[in-house]
Amino acid sequence: MEKPAETRYEIHELIRRRWSRRAIDDRSVTAETVGSLFEAARWAPSSNNAQPWRFIVARKEEQAEYDRLMSCLVEANAKWAARAPVLILTVAKLMFDNGTVNRHAFHDVGLATENLVLQATALGLTTHQMAGFHVDKARAEFKIPEGFDPVAMIAVGYPGDPSILPDILRERELKPRVRDASDRFVYSSEWGHTSPLIR
Amino acid sequence: MEKPAETRYEIHELIRRRWSRRAIDDRSVTAETVGSLFEAARWAPSSNNAQPWRFIVARKEEQAEYDRLMSCLVEANAKWAARAPVLILTVAKLMFDNGTVNRHAFHDVGLATENLVLQATALGLTTHQMAGFHVDKARAEFKIPEGFDPVAMIAVGYPGDPSILPDILRERELKPRVRDASDRFVYSSEWGHTSPLIR
Repeated sequence: MEKPAETRYEIHELIRRRWSRRAIDDRSVTAETVGSLFEAARWAPSSNNAQPWRFIVARKEEQAEYDRLMSCLVEANAKWAARAPVLILTVAKLMFDNGTVNRHAFHDVGLATENLVLQATALGLTTHQMAGFHVDKARAEFKIPEGFDPVAMIAVGYPGDPSILPDILRERELKPRVRDASDRFVYSSEWGHTSPLIR
Repeated sequence: MEKPAETRYEIHELIRRRWSRRAIDDRSVTAETVGSLFEAARWAPSSNNAQPWRFIVARKEEQAEYDRLMSCLVEANAKWAARAPVLILTVAKLMFDNGTVNRHAFHDVGLATENLVLQATALGLTTHQMAGFHVDKARAEFKIPEGFDPVAMIAVGYPGDPSILPDILRERELKPRVRDASDRFVYSSEWGHTSPLIR
């Protein structure tokens, strides 16, 4: 099942097709494919090219590591994400090497993560980012040092059939994707005043 | 001139070709094209689908607005970015509608921004994100309310010839693009321990 964005302007098909499914097949993902995801993340831009992203990754094949990642998810996410063959934890480096605060650390992890999820889309994979995980538990489990912050978790795998989901999640999976119209968030001159460039 | 990433794993050509040039041609960008950039941003994922991104945009044709954006840049950026036909300021909404803090606000602006810059790449444009701008001045100029934070500025336009740049910037423009190897930032089990999935 595909659920491409209903766009008002033309956009690249990779961006149009990306979609955070919960229905993930349990088919395995190769190490080579996982490597491509991080290669895409690697080439993201970042403030001062500081590359303030770190990733902790495991496939089901790496069972002990996978289980540790899984144990960091809140229960509502663990339920459906347990089918995902790959789990990722993203982490931000909060300071530049010279000790000053990098106010773009989370932002730049976002830039890299979007590259990762679009590369996944290009490879026929689906991804679902999750804010719902235990930040302190993740920090403890993986001995994440001071100066770094756990950011988000990502479930990765091949698209599954929505029928594998419990009723409530299946209904959500089948609903159309929705976003605010661009005139709600693209301004000029005054705050809240839609840009005349937006039709 | 192109400067595609030297990758160790295959990645999508859109991600491989994206590159933050400073040499930007002064050729105008149509409103339709600008609209496509924000449509791409619009379809980014976000925590709770809260879409915590706002954008302030102007082309040189909207001269007063463009000049106000330009006045927010630090001098080192204003020098080369003054050729860019489009300037954008990105802004993060720091709270969810229910008043709780959205710790992914900056992160999700990053997700949307990466969509925007990749869409620009797809349309033959180049983009350069800048942390170097006056946050407080931007807040004042555009009456950005409490609960929102200016994040970054972006210069957008068609690629220009590096010869238009002053010597130091031209040298930088012609150098190869560099990134840390994936084994430096993709871990498993213990912090700092490279994942066995990375070759």
